[in-house]
Amino acid sequence: MLINCVAYQDGKKLADLPIDDISDYVERPDCFVWVALLDATPDELKQMQHEFSLHELAVEDAQRGHQRPKIEEYGDSLFAVVKTVEMVGDELVLGEVDVFVGANYVLSSRTNCSQGFLGVRARAEREPHLLRQGSAFVLYALMDAVVDRYFPVLDALESELEAIEDRMFDSGTERVNIERLYQLKRKVMVLRHVVGPLMEAVGKLHGGRVPPLAHDTQEYFRDVHDHLARINATLDSIRDTISTAIQVNLSMVAIDESEVNKQLAAWAAIFAVFTAFAGIWGMNFKFMPELDWQYGYPAAVAVMCGACGYMYYLFKRSGWL
Amino acid sequence: MLINCVAYQDGKKLADLPIDDISDYVERPDCFVWVALLDATPDELKQMQHEFSLHELAVEDAQRGHQRPKIEEYGDSLFAVVKTVEMVGDELVLGEVDVFVGANYVLSSRTNCSQGFLGVRARAEREPHLLRQGSAFVLYALMDAVVDRYFPVLDALESELEAIEDRMFDSGTERVNIERLYQLKRKVMVLRHVVGPLMEAVGKLHGGRVPPLAHDTQEYFRDVHDHLARINATLDSIRDTISTAIQVNLSMVAIDESEVNKQLAAWAAIFAVFTAFAGIWGMNFKFMPELDWQYGYPAAVAVMCGACGYMYYLFKRSGWL
Amino acid sequence: MLINCVAYQDGKKLADLPIDDISDYVERPDCFVWVALLDATPDELKQMQHEFSLHELAVEDAQRGHQRPKIEEYGDSLFAVVKTVEMVGDELVLGEVDVFVGANYVLSSRTNCSQGFLGVRARAEREPHLLRQGSAFVLYALMDAVVDRYFPVLDALESELEAIEDRMFDSGTERVNIERLYQLKRKVMVLRHVVGPLMEAVGKLHGGRVPPLAHDTQEYFRDVHDHLARINATLDSIRDTISTAIQVNLSMVAIDESEVNKQLAAWAAIFAVFTAFAGIWGMNFKFMPELDWQYGYPAAVAVMCGACGYMYYLFKRSGWL
Amino acid sequence: MLINCVAYQDGKKLADLPIDDISDYVERPDCFVWVALLDATPDELKQMQHEFSLHELAVEDAQRGHQRPKIEEYGDSLFAVVKTVEMVGDELVLGEVDVFVGANYVLSSRTNCSQGFLGVRARAEREPHLLRQGSAFVLYALMDAVVDRYFPVLDALESELEAIEDRMFDSGTERVNIERLYQLKRKVMVLRHVVGPLMEAVGKLHGGRVPPLAHDTQEYFRDVHDHLARINATLDSIRDTISTAIQVNLSMVAIDESEVNKQLAAWAAIFAVFTAFAGIWGMNFKFMPELDWQYGYPAAVAVMCGACGYMYYLFKRSGWL
Amino acid sequence: MLINCVAYQDGKKLADLPIDDISDYVERPDCFVWVALLDATPDELKQMQHEFSLHELAVEDAQRGHQRPKIEEYGDSLFAVVKTVEMVGDELVLGEVDVFVGANYVLSSRTNCSQGFLGVRARAEREPHLLRQGSAFVLYALMDAVVDRYFPVLDALESELEAIEDRMFDSGTERVNIERLYQLKRKVMVLRHVVGPLMEAVGKLHGGRVPPLAHDTQEYFRDVHDHLARINATLDSIRDTISTAIQVNLSMVAIDESEVNKQLAAWAAIFAVFTAFAGIWGMNFKFMPELDWQYGYPAAVAVMCGACGYMYYLFKRSGWL
Repeated sequence: MLINCVAYQDGKKLADLPIDDISDYVERPDCFVWVALLDATPDELKQMQHEFSLHELAVEDAQRGHQRPKIEEYGDSLFAVVKTVEMVGDELVLGEVDVFVGANYVLSSRTNCSQGFLGVRARAEREPHLLRQGSAFVLYALMDAVVDRYFPVLDALESELEAIEDRMFDSGTERVNIERLYQLKRKVMVLRHVVGPLMEAVGKLHGGRVPPLAHDTQEYFRDVHDHLARINATLDSIRDTISTAIQVNLSMVAIDESEVNKQLAAWAAIFAVFTAFAGIWGMNFKFMPELDWQYGYPAAVAVMCGACGYMYYLFKRSGWL
Repeated sequence: MLINCVAYQDGKKLADLPIDDISDYVERPDCFVWVALLDATPDELKQMQHEFSLHELAVEDAQRGHQRPKIEEYGDSLFAVVKTVEMVGDELVLGEVDVFVGANYVLSSRTNCSQGFLGVRARAEREPHLLRQGSAFVLYALMDAVVDRYFPVLDALESELEAIEDRMFDSGTERVNIERLYQLKRKVMVLRHVVGPLMEAVGKLHGGRVPPLAHDTQEYFRDVHDHLARINATLDSIRDTISTAIQVNLSMVAIDESEVNKQLAAWAAIFAVFTAFAGIWGMNFKFMPELDWQYGYPAAVAVMCGACGYMYYLFKRSGWL
Repeated sequence: MLINCVAYQDGKKLADLPIDDISDYVERPDCFVWVALLDATPDELKQMQHEFSLHELAVEDAQRGHQRPKIEEYGDSLFAVVKTVEMVGDELVLGEVDVFVGANYVLSSRTNCSQGFLGVRARAEREPHLLRQGSAFVLYALMDAVVDRYFPVLDALESELEAIEDRMFDSGTERVNIERLYQLKRKVMVLRHVVGPLMEAVGKLHGGRVPPLAHDTQEYFRDVHDHLARINATLDSIRDTISTAIQVNLSMVAIDESEVNKQLAAWAAIFAVFTAFAGIWGMNFKFMPELDWQYGYPAAVAVMCGACGYMYYLFKRSGWL
Repeated sequence: MLINCVAYQDGKKLADLPIDDISDYVERPDCFVWVALLDATPDELKQMQHEFSLHELAVEDAQRGHQRPKIEEYGDSLFAVVKTVEMVGDELVLGEVDVFVGANYVLSSRTNCSQGFLGVRARAEREPHLLRQGSAFVLYALMDAVVDRYFPVLDALESELEAIEDRMFDSGTERVNIERLYQLKRKVMVLRHVVGPLMEAVGKLHGGRVPPLAHDTQEYFRDVHDHLARINATLDSIRDTISTAIQVNLSMVAIDESEVNKQLAAWAAIFAVFTAFAGIWGMNFKFMPELDWQYGYPAAVAVMCGACGYMYYLFKRSGWL
Repeated sequence: MLINCVAYQDGKKLADLPIDDISDYVERPDCFVWVALLDATPDELKQMQHEFSLHELAVEDAQRGHQRPKIEEYGDSLFAVVKTVEMVGDELVLGEVDVFVGANYVLSSRTNCSQGFLGVRARAEREPHLLRQGSAFVLYALMDAVVDRYFPVLDALESELEAIEDRMFDSGTERVNIERLYQLKRKVMVLRHVVGPLMEAVGKLHGGRVPPLAHDTQEYFRDVHDHLARINATLDSIRDTISTAIQVNLSMVAIDESEVNKQLAAWAAIFAVFTAFAGIWGMNFKFMPELDWQYGYPAAVAVMCGACGYMYYLFKRSGWL
């Protein structure tokens, strides 16, 4: 589905174009065309391939989807695959933005991603001195928008971790914690696979050998790279913490169990003493003088309770109860 | 066993060749010969070595089999070892495809691999403009076919992992889960040893210093590299998840056990109380007035059951039962 | 908030400047201006951007805060983000120092950091032969001051680890230890994220390709780098020790539990024997001759106690009790 | 002990030499001397140092032994230390082969290694067209022979791992398994320390900057490197599997224990019920009508057994027994 | 404290110098001065700085101590920090040797290190042809001496590990083992932090870009590097083994516990059966014919013991007892 198809000149909007005119405008050296597609059909992509003379392999990748984030050079043009991440309920939903960038065109194709990039275009149009920098700046603006949307997801993951940590040392929460830690780990890994390869790819747009297209916008891409590095470091840190937390959880289970065991042992001991006395006085020997005493019974119960009470006190003192 | 032996000119099929004519055609500069062997015998390989002037060490490797995936340069020619992976029942079966590539020949030798590459040849013959790119393109097409067949195997591993995850937090499934996780890990490692070295090898066919043969098909090999990188990343992710899952499994066992322990402790306590009362009234003291009461017995049973019931209620409330 | 705004010439203080005069002094080739801000407002930063012609992206970063430590080149100038760490009670508090460095100016902006850098300025002013080296030396002096403040924090973490280690092999301390180890790990990770990226960034200020500004002060930056490497190595070592300690803790829990279990088993056995004898003599058979003996009762108790005492001795000897 | 001392010319054996003539032959440009020592004494090494003008540090290394595998350049000559591995009973025995290689000599010194290299020499003498390539080829042939002997050791380790795996999920084998896994891990690590540094060293004999001596035999050394890489990958894989297997073993212990615990709990419950009933009817109340019934006793036993039987059935159904 | 201060010419000792003459001799091109300090005071270092024109930052480092091992270039001179390690009782004691090396001087300053380097000087003086190589050779000789002293420490750690391993699979030793493993790990980490950075630093004195001073002694430094690499590899191996051993220890605890548990369960079952029978015959039913039998009592005891004996046999057979 075509969302926008606009020609710009000198940083200012020239006209909304019909698709068939694109190739004419692309040939004009002072002009620059920015097209946005949503859930593009194979036919639309074929048409765009024809208008912009896109490389076959790049178009194939865009059609198939499920690519790793990457930025590839095809001759003078770039093909970028960027993943969007959205929190829907408790789940991470991945979408994909494919961007074809040439000297004077940008074609972005968005798939499975509820939030659009109209804001990016609007902001760019409000700042002609930036838009004048051409297609590489638009690529930057799109990437920056996608990456900015990673931060709330990252924050959600961090909050989830903190929520787990708050309950981690409470006994009885181990089953829930371990399950939540596992789910969190899975989400962190999804996000890492979105962020990691992109960071690596963006790293090639500044510093060493940079594609000519991106040469004058290096500092902008370094900024994106820096954001991605920050997200990545935080993800690493969450991941490391989760590993430790799983180990700690296991320790907590073991500690809890060992305390239950101690209580079990203590009570078993107390009742064993009680039963032992009762067993003695339940024996059927003929000559057991205490059985005939007037206050033998209450005395016996007192002795039994006394012994048990003393044991209870001992166990209490040593921390077993 | 010889499967095919065809000469091509200008991207179109020229003729099926008898083996002895190969060397003649290989010498014609505008021609290009594509031979496919299946489970080649040492004699066949010797014959091919002679016709194509293959390097001794490469032929030895092809004969011995069980090589790591690799791509080696011998002068102007390349020798590629690629592993095929097939799911047979619940097992991974490895095969090997050895490809010798020269300026105007391709010799592929397939071993222990049920699925052939006739489809690759057919598709190549349908697209003469691609086949015209020569032997490097055929190498690409063969590799691409092999790598495409990794994906269903990868999907099977991912499904297996998901199946395990679905049952991971059910108690009582730990024994089965741990065994399945272990088997899955083994399979993942097999696939990694197939994918990892190949990815590394293909990485040398695009980007930096590229063998002259592959120079014009770099973008195709980058595409294969990209697929391999994707598979590798997924494998890493599965592997990491398995490690976590094994740890989680251990935690689940411990949690289950600690719950059983608590139940054991609770019931032991209840019955200990019961037995304690029974012990008291089973003692043989002469003067135990309650023993003579008319309703002493039902009252005693009521007290015993009441005490136990109250304890049951307490344990229930605290979550031990 | 402006703290200082001073112009220097030839290593000596020239004058305190009003903000509006900065740009005049910055243009004088023999002069050098050093400005310090505290918790700078957006307006102040805007004013500074104007006076020093700072790069937009750098100013944005300084405004937003929460950057990773980094050193970026913008043309001839440098933009450094350094994190300060302070121990407040038991918590690590992070602050940020952003330093803009040009050929003849240094602008430092401190945020959320209680301790200032007046001492740095005072020392620099006392040693004109060093200050004469210009803005790069000031950058070094500021960094050195920040990094020096990492050491007491590091020492606190090491002391904490030692305190945990001292109690690690005492039984009964596992719950506290695991919690403290977890908190310590978190702090170590915070410090690592402060130190690691900074070390990497400072590494680019000596050795290979060095920004022209820092060319003559390489040895100083190597010194800072060295300090950071030392901190980093210590952090790695603490981290590694914590991992091991967590594992050891789990082992200690298990060992403790297994000892409790043995005691439980031993006492259960002793009382089971006691109860068994009592059970025998509590049976209601008619013909049990020992029941009629004069000293049957004391003999029975003696036998019971003797058997139990002997078992106690056996368990004691085998280390179960 | 001197094993062999032969001069070759043009790939063919010229003569067995007395030691003192070595230096004469070494000086003849068309000649090449190959000497083999076994458990060389310091005096023999000194003599050889003199004849071949070996570098002092290399000879020292050969004398001291216990070196890491390595290949070092001393001027135009190479000094290679290669470790041999033999399976003696259940133990790995390490030996060492030190090879000094110059333009026209090879001196190999074998220590603590039962198997010799006469086969290598015989094969080389049978193929003069290969031997003609000179001393680097001999170095290759020796290394190849040593590395080929790693494979049976590797196979033994893999078989051992498989033997452990076959019993891993049987309960009751944990103690044996963990001990065998630990021993296996130790052996794997020994082999890794033999293979890893050698692989690294051989990697420098092909590809990038290669010592002039080895320049024409690069493809042979790449072959050795490839074998070593294969062994190394397999070792990594075994190592990784062992780690997982140790974790799995721990899980199996825990699962076994938790099942024993459940059985213990179930039987305890059954007998507790039985004892409770017996306790009730063992009380000494006067008015317990059922005690006077004619068939009270068998009825009581029936009730007791019935209750226990029903509990048994319940536990059986829930999988605890 | 000054230990030695000697001038050498052409590899031979010229004279013991008073400190004030050092600078005169250092200026003579054919001469070379070697000074050794022990626990140098700040004043001594200041004096030396003046005599040798040492760099301020290097002297500061030497004064402060607690540096990481490193080798730094200051112009044409080198500054090396090397750590000594001594086993005192069961503890590792770290010392530091700081060496300042210029074209014709060596100044070594030893701190907290009981063993001196007089032997190094004596040996060097005995071999003038080596000493003639100048200050870099002395640096090598000092380093070699320090590194040689690491080996006995390494051996002690390996012996400790073997001692632990010998008892690792004995039950009942877990508490001691885990504590010893932890202490050993700590020591290994200390040694690693001594060896690792030094290895890295020495690696820069041979191979690629080498400081001019060390140019002719590269092969010597490669030798030191090789020793360090060997120590490092052994340390890695010990470390890895310790990790595995800790895991194994945990498994052993769990296995031990599970066996105790089985015994506990078995004995509990046997006594439960005994008690059940005693309970039956302790009931007060009127009509229990066996109670009136002449040999009822011995028969009952026989039945009880028989049942328990049979159970004992069953448990014995299944390995629980």
